[in-house]
Amino acid sequence: MAGQDEAREHEPWSAFRQALLNDGMLVATGVDGVYGRSSDYEAVAAAVDRLAVAAGGGQEVVSLRFPPVMPWEVFRANGYLESFPDQMGSIHTFRGDERGHAELVRRAESDEDRSDLLATTDLVLCPAVCHPLYPTQSGSLPEGGRLAEVTGWCFRHEPSRDPFRMQAFRQHDWVYLGSPEGAREHRDRWLTIGAEVLTSLGLPVEQVVANDPFFGRPGRMLAANQRMEELKYELVTPVFEEGRPTAISSSNCHLDHFGRPFAITTADGDVAHTSCFGFGIDRITLALMDRHGTDVLEWPAPIRSMLWP
Amino acid sequence: MAGQDEAREHEPWSAFRQALLNDGMLVATGVDGVYGRSSDYEAVAAAVDRLAVAAGGGQEVVSLRFPPVMPWEVFRANGYLESFPDQMGSIHTFRGDERGHAELVRRAESDEDRSDLLATTDLVLCPAVCHPLYPTQSGSLPEGGRLAEVTGWCFRHEPSRDPFRMQAFRQHDWVYLGSPEGAREHRDRWLTIGAEVLTSLGLPVEQVVANDPFFGRPGRMLAANQRMEELKYELVTPVFEEGRPTAISSSNCHLDHFGRPFAITTADGDVAHTSCFGFGIDRITLALMDRHGTDVLEWPAPIRSMLWP
Repeated sequence: MAGQDEAREHEPWSAFRQALLNDGMLVATGVDGVYGRSSDYEAVAAAVDRLAVAAGGGQEVVSLRFPPVMPWEVFRANGYLESFPDQMGSIHTFRGDERGHAELVRRAESDEDRSDLLATTDLVLCPAVCHPLYPTQSGSLPEGGRLAEVTGWCFRHEPSRDPFRMQAFRQHDWVYLGSPEGAREHRDRWLTIGAEVLTSLGLPVEQVVANDPFFGRPGRMLAANQRMEELKYELVTPVFEEGRPTAISSSNCHLDHFGRPFAITTADGDVAHTSCFGFGIDRITLALMDRHGTDVLEWPAPIRSMLWP
Repeated sequence: MAGQDEAREHEPWSAFRQALLNDGMLVATGVDGVYGRSSDYEAVAAAVDRLAVAAGGGQEVVSLRFPPVMPWEVFRANGYLESFPDQMGSIHTFRGDERGHAELVRRAESDEDRSDLLATTDLVLCPAVCHPLYPTQSGSLPEGGRLAEVTGWCFRHEPSRDPFRMQAFRQHDWVYLGSPEGAREHRDRWLTIGAEVLTSLGLPVEQVVANDPFFGRPGRMLAANQRMEELKYELVTPVFEEGRPTAISSSNCHLDHFGRPFAITTADGDVAHTSCFGFGIDRITLALMDRHGTDVLEWPAPIRSMLWP
């Protein structure tokens, strides 16, 4: 039945999705936007990730890895709850007794709502890979600020059958913490570096002003303001037959959005500004497959030798 | 204040935990059992993961990677909800309007219960790395069964300050799907291979019969049965000054527990049996640090050359 549904789809991404599934690059799990990945897919993703690291040129940086879950308290303090509640993955568990458990199992079997039997924990899924970093950087930064790189799994609750819109995906972020000028410079520098990396992989990119999908009416104003101040840029590449511009990397100037709640200060004692540039590891992997095909062995030699020198 | 709490701790793991945090191997996040990892820690974890792959000796296998979230339906169908409800990470999100959102933000700020404002999704955190594999293997297996390897993030809601008991951690599993005899042979073979890998890293291990922490009174019977039938073995290594036996790898014979709900059959048309052997990537990394210290450069040369040949 899923096959029939898919055959009926005539979205711009339908053929690409079908090729990824048919060729076993992605494996459907039954939930839109959540896939298993083949070893070929992962080999590309790992190679892209290595390029994302190498692009830093071996600078001394803070290098940290966080699990896919992070404290609710960080989520609340950094404003994500206010701006993107509909994208959250709040982690709940069962704290009841055997009787409650029997009722939970019964409801699961009859597909009745179970939410009131499950209690919140102090965790959420990490929505952006740099978020868990900031609370660990509280205190005074060195002169000139600090550079950090983080990578890991992100979650956004936005089910879609478009392979480019996954619910669970990986980012590799280069983050700066320091002065307002330093944050802008970092953003500009990494937009250039990122474009070079992507172009070297045969992915033409354009730099465009963008906004995040803020929630509700106040969110529309926040989004407009973000665009007006040019706080967010995306590197977009054309995908599918019609060349739909699709973001595969992005940069954000956060101003003091993270510095303030987590008490990060510059060497001069000012509230730190931060900015980040993120390589969208899964999106870049997908864009490569859209452009060069799902048979990695058939990719152009220059692309292969960039990925696997 | 956290520092004072920690100074007061006199648990067997207190000194080890403090060393990991002081030396920056792990970074506290404010939630017990959820840590950031340093690049040194990750270098060891990645090396252990490579050894877990290499231990397969280059056999033709199904190799898949799944994200940290998996379908609720898989969780329900494979019996985890019945057996381990208190360990689940059920993923909820906000589906309300702006008014509900304002109330959610208010409750978050005043630290009131928010669970009734959040709705279930069709996802849970993956509790064991092999679970998302089985539903993708529905249908008839080849003669002799099938071998698969999977790795990724697992979640179990069991907050603890013992570093060996993380809520979010990585496993690397070798899975067999096929006949009952094949499943036992796989288990036995991999207990031997696993012990060799761990011993080569300077970790003495002992093979012990074990059980999973099944929930409630019926769970006690399930656990007793699991031990009696010797379905679960752990490879334990002594850690801390007192040499507490700590599982760093384990194997499970699942009988037809996964074959039945996911309609996996042998070439002969019988319901498939499955078994798995899992390297506990984070636990092995921690055991190495407990035994050889937190300064990776000072580890014995033979251990270093095993990890980084």
